[in-house]
Amino acid sequence: MNKKIKGIGASEGIAVAKALVLVEEHMNIEQKQVSDIKAEIEKLENAISISVEELESLRQSTEKKLGEEKAAIFEAHKDIAADPAMKDEYLEMINSQKVNAEFAVHTIANNYYSMFMEMDDPYFKERSADIKDVSSRIIKHLMGIKIVDLTTIKEEVIIVAEDLTPSQTAQLDKKFVKGFATNIGGRTSHAAIMARSLEIPAVLGLKTITSDVKDGEVFALDGTHGIVELGLDQKIIDQYQVQAEQFIAFKNELKKFKDVPTKTKDGQEKLIEANIGSPTDVEGVIENGGEGIGLFRSEFLYMDNDHFPTEEEQFVAYKNVMESMNNKVVIIRTLDIGGDKKLSYFEFPHEMNPFLGYRAIRFSLDKKEIFRDQIRALLRASVFGQLGIMFPMIATVDEFKDAKAFVETCKKELDQENIAYDKNVQVGMMVEIPAAAVNADQFAKYADFFSIGTNDLVQYSMAADRMSEKVSYLYQPTNPSLLRLIKMTIDGGHAQNRWVGMCGEMAGDVQSIPLLMGLGLDAFSMSASSMLRARQLMSQIDMKDAEKLANKALQLETDEQVLALVDDFLNNLK
Amino acid sequence: MNKKIKGIGASEGIAVAKALVLVEEHMNIEQKQVSDIKAEIEKLENAISISVEELESLRQSTEKKLGEEKAAIFEAHKDIAADPAMKDEYLEMINSQKVNAEFAVHTIANNYYSMFMEMDDPYFKERSADIKDVSSRIIKHLMGIKIVDLTTIKEEVIIVAEDLTPSQTAQLDKKFVKGFATNIGGRTSHAAIMARSLEIPAVLGLKTITSDVKDGEVFALDGTHGIVELGLDQKIIDQYQVQAEQFIAFKNELKKFKDVPTKTKDGQEKLIEANIGSPTDVEGVIENGGEGIGLFRSEFLYMDNDHFPTEEEQFVAYKNVMESMNNKVVIIRTLDIGGDKKLSYFEFPHEMNPFLGYRAIRFSLDKKEIFRDQIRALLRASVFGQLGIMFPMIATVDEFKDAKAFVETCKKELDQENIAYDKNVQVGMMVEIPAAAVNADQFAKYADFFSIGTNDLVQYSMAADRMSEKVSYLYQPTNPSLLRLIKMTIDGGHAQNRWVGMCGEMAGDVQSIPLLMGLGLDAFSMSASSMLRARQLMSQIDMKDAEKLANKALQLETDEQVLALVDDFLNNLK
Repeated sequence: MNKKIKGIGASEGIAVAKALVLVEEHMNIEQKQVSDIKAEIEKLENAISISVEELESLRQSTEKKLGEEKAAIFEAHKDIAADPAMKDEYLEMINSQKVNAEFAVHTIANNYYSMFMEMDDPYFKERSADIKDVSSRIIKHLMGIKIVDLTTIKEEVIIVAEDLTPSQTAQLDKKFVKGFATNIGGRTSHAAIMARSLEIPAVLGLKTITSDVKDGEVFALDGTHGIVELGLDQKIIDQYQVQAEQFIAFKNELKKFKDVPTKTKDGQEKLIEANIGSPTDVEGVIENGGEGIGLFRSEFLYMDNDHFPTEEEQFVAYKNVMESMNNKVVIIRTLDIGGDKKLSYFEFPHEMNPFLGYRAIRFSLDKKEIFRDQIRALLRASVFGQLGIMFPMIATVDEFKDAKAFVETCKKELDQENIAYDKNVQVGMMVEIPAAAVNADQFAKYADFFSIGTNDLVQYSMAADRMSEKVSYLYQPTNPSLLRLIKMTIDGGHAQNRWVGMCGEMAGDVQSIPLLMGLGLDAFSMSASSMLRARQLMSQIDMKDAEKLANKALQLETDEQVLALVDDFLNNLK
Repeated sequence: MNKKIKGIGASEGIAVAKALVLVEEHMNIEQKQVSDIKAEIEKLENAISISVEELESLRQSTEKKLGEEKAAIFEAHKDIAADPAMKDEYLEMINSQKVNAEFAVHTIANNYYSMFMEMDDPYFKERSADIKDVSSRIIKHLMGIKIVDLTTIKEEVIIVAEDLTPSQTAQLDKKFVKGFATNIGGRTSHAAIMARSLEIPAVLGLKTITSDVKDGEVFALDGTHGIVELGLDQKIIDQYQVQAEQFIAFKNELKKFKDVPTKTKDGQEKLIEANIGSPTDVEGVIENGGEGIGLFRSEFLYMDNDHFPTEEEQFVAYKNVMESMNNKVVIIRTLDIGGDKKLSYFEFPHEMNPFLGYRAIRFSLDKKEIFRDQIRALLRASVFGQLGIMFPMIATVDEFKDAKAFVETCKKELDQENIAYDKNVQVGMMVEIPAAAVNADQFAKYADFFSIGTNDLVQYSMAADRMSEKVSYLYQPTNPSLLRLIKMTIDGGHAQNRWVGMCGEMAGDVQSIPLLMGLGLDAFSMSASSMLRARQLMSQIDMKDAEKLANKALQLETDEQVLALVDDFLNNLK
């Protein structure tokens, strides 16, 4: 009897193969009083140095097998394992509270983990997974628990586990690992992000998959629809095999779209760009044929740090990205700190509703000395390609004018110091606050470009925090009201001949793309892994049809109606 | 040498008189260990019963002098002083922690105070001031500190104080007290609310006025512009005297507008209504010529309670208001709980951004058994006048349709039980979420009326919590983007022949009224004290001029520009 289990489709594709069920020995970390502090510290130092050695050897073997980029994670893990500040905290806790080393490592690492997890940013969620991964490695050594090695897999399998850690996913060899299925995790969990970047089909959040499936049992996984099927007969296995091959053929078809410009069916040009969170993401953008970077979040420079980054530190990072992108457009967003993103070295005021508070451009305009370092670094980097400077969370025309005037002030300083910058550097803004969307025609007099940030725009327009489980049903990017705000933004920008992009999640969503085309969006910035599919889709759509579709959608009442309309449209493309 | 000090204009009007500087003995409440618990409790019981006696005698004298309504506050104060639940908490703390009575009263009263203060609702802010007032009366008795008696004032003065408590303001005799000036407080503080309701000019938030002005010194206070002037010569005193008389003449002129319908200069009809928070506010609405109640907040029934109010309890309260309003329109808003408004008997989920969370209609639709009691009570009350049922925080058409369908379900129940209700009861919605404003034409197919809630609409549109000091500058109701959202709402409603009102603070604001008229608003609901001025102002404005003004404003860039345009318009009226 076959049985279907629904989970969260985290990475597209079909796999059918034997289950490899990873059973992790449970770590039962208890607080114990220790009398021999010295011995405990020695034990800890030993566990740390073994961990660092292991990570170095993993780095080397990964580099050999999968290249430098994939190996980079182990460099980061080594840094975390050997981090002197964290080690000081472990020692301090062992010394002052006379507790066992594993309890100290667990407690302190957990604090860091929670801090990063609370941030609404995929980049920092990944960092939190790294900390958990490294700290459990150290704890396992302290407790004598075996660490699972995935590099030894030599037959085709689907990995079944509670969760996958960053170091585990980096070890996966696509030749043998056909998919993975986990009990926990969602679309933005670390395992999901890695699955998409490795292009391994994955279904997460299956709750009990580690006990539902037997080790060695052949089962199927559909990452596109988030389904796992067990208890298969040969006929169904064969059907899945065919589907898996069709999916791979489709993926290969997509590869043809790598080096061609983005065009609609009727030949109109659009731009497909990538959202990135750190300079290391650039490689994936180029691999997937990105025509530029539509959003480079500058937060990593501030949050992976123990001080506000200097002008020089920022300049080097921005220049690197500009140079790697080889004269393609790079839009760098100025600091979007506050809200859920905090800094260890700066105390934000306590606010009842941080999403409606002191953050992003509000912070920058209030702290001009910090803003100045960033603007100068950006201007100096502007000579290495095509830079766009973008301000986040602009609500009023006054704010935009203030921020732009400050760029002019910095330009004058650089002139006086004879430092070069691109005189034509574009200065634009995120449209992510309803007031800005509604007033877009006024902003367009001053902003060189708009980039619509749908994640925030939806939250504010609906007055619903999508992190709050009770109201997350109101996160409806394709609700007609949102489409209208997007239309106002695009029309407002176009009235002044400005280009209008989007860098929210919606821009890479298959159901949203036809609507956004019809609304007149010029540039679509998304995660690198969605770019080829988006370009292929656009090549199948005639702009006149998209416009008709969008106009119909604008007159509907509900999100559900819009999605049904789009599904119908997409089905007719085939 | 004269000297001007700027504060917050909290109640309009001009006063020039001798300063009466109230110096309150400082209460230095220390925590002490007590050994004789029994004696401490006796002391407390004594202090409570003296306080209750005093409050009763204040109630009687106030009733004689100022009428029953003004005296009602002392009835409430007596209830607080004698509250058995609070007393139990005092005793419990004294018994278990062996602390002094004044410390126990201070600590426990402070908890209640903070709880009420955190709510964004003038009604509950008043309740918190009451608690502080009563608890310091008890504490003063415990510590042997003299309580200032304002009923003995027998010459014309301006009262100068750190702050004024509810019991102090209730004692003020307008014949002698010409104004008041305080160090602390803002436009929504208790003292401000009382000043406006007593029509005594007031300037608050002057920081150091108690030391700036000498007791007995003649000085001037301009509550309209929020200015205090000291060190006056006779010439300036005379000028202020003239202004004060002009203002009083203007107020008398306004009284002529009490019993006439609201009409624009060119004879178009508008509706001026009141926002109220409890049934006792109805008297003020009638006194000030209100043509209805545009917003009756039903929260008081839930928050001044230790259980969800029963259908019967609600029915009685709604019926009372309907009957007192004598067949004029009464719009009752269903429960707007959550966000900053909590209940002692229900645990809300912890949310990072409660303003973007589980509240209002989201709560009601999720808790149908609680919603049911309210809807049935409203329907049953509908036969006693002209009722409108209004849902708060509607974001999507689905939500409105769900809520309205639930009203139909309740009607069917009542039909089966042979209970009467008005078959034509109107069912409408607040427009306070940007998505609703943008999509108003779609909502108007189902909603019988709209009422724009500007306080929230501004917060969400600007993504700025006005309670957060760092971003309160973004609270800009007259920013062109807000005017556009208001216009979309009005146009959307009118397209389906729905009437559109406003119940946010903006509706009663002199600078906003001409704009709102020009945008086509039908009903203006405001605090009772603003109604006559609004009606008089509308009588001076021709709708064609207002429309021209609004159209100009819609094309401006900033709030500042809009306000300058309106000021110019208002100056030309004179």
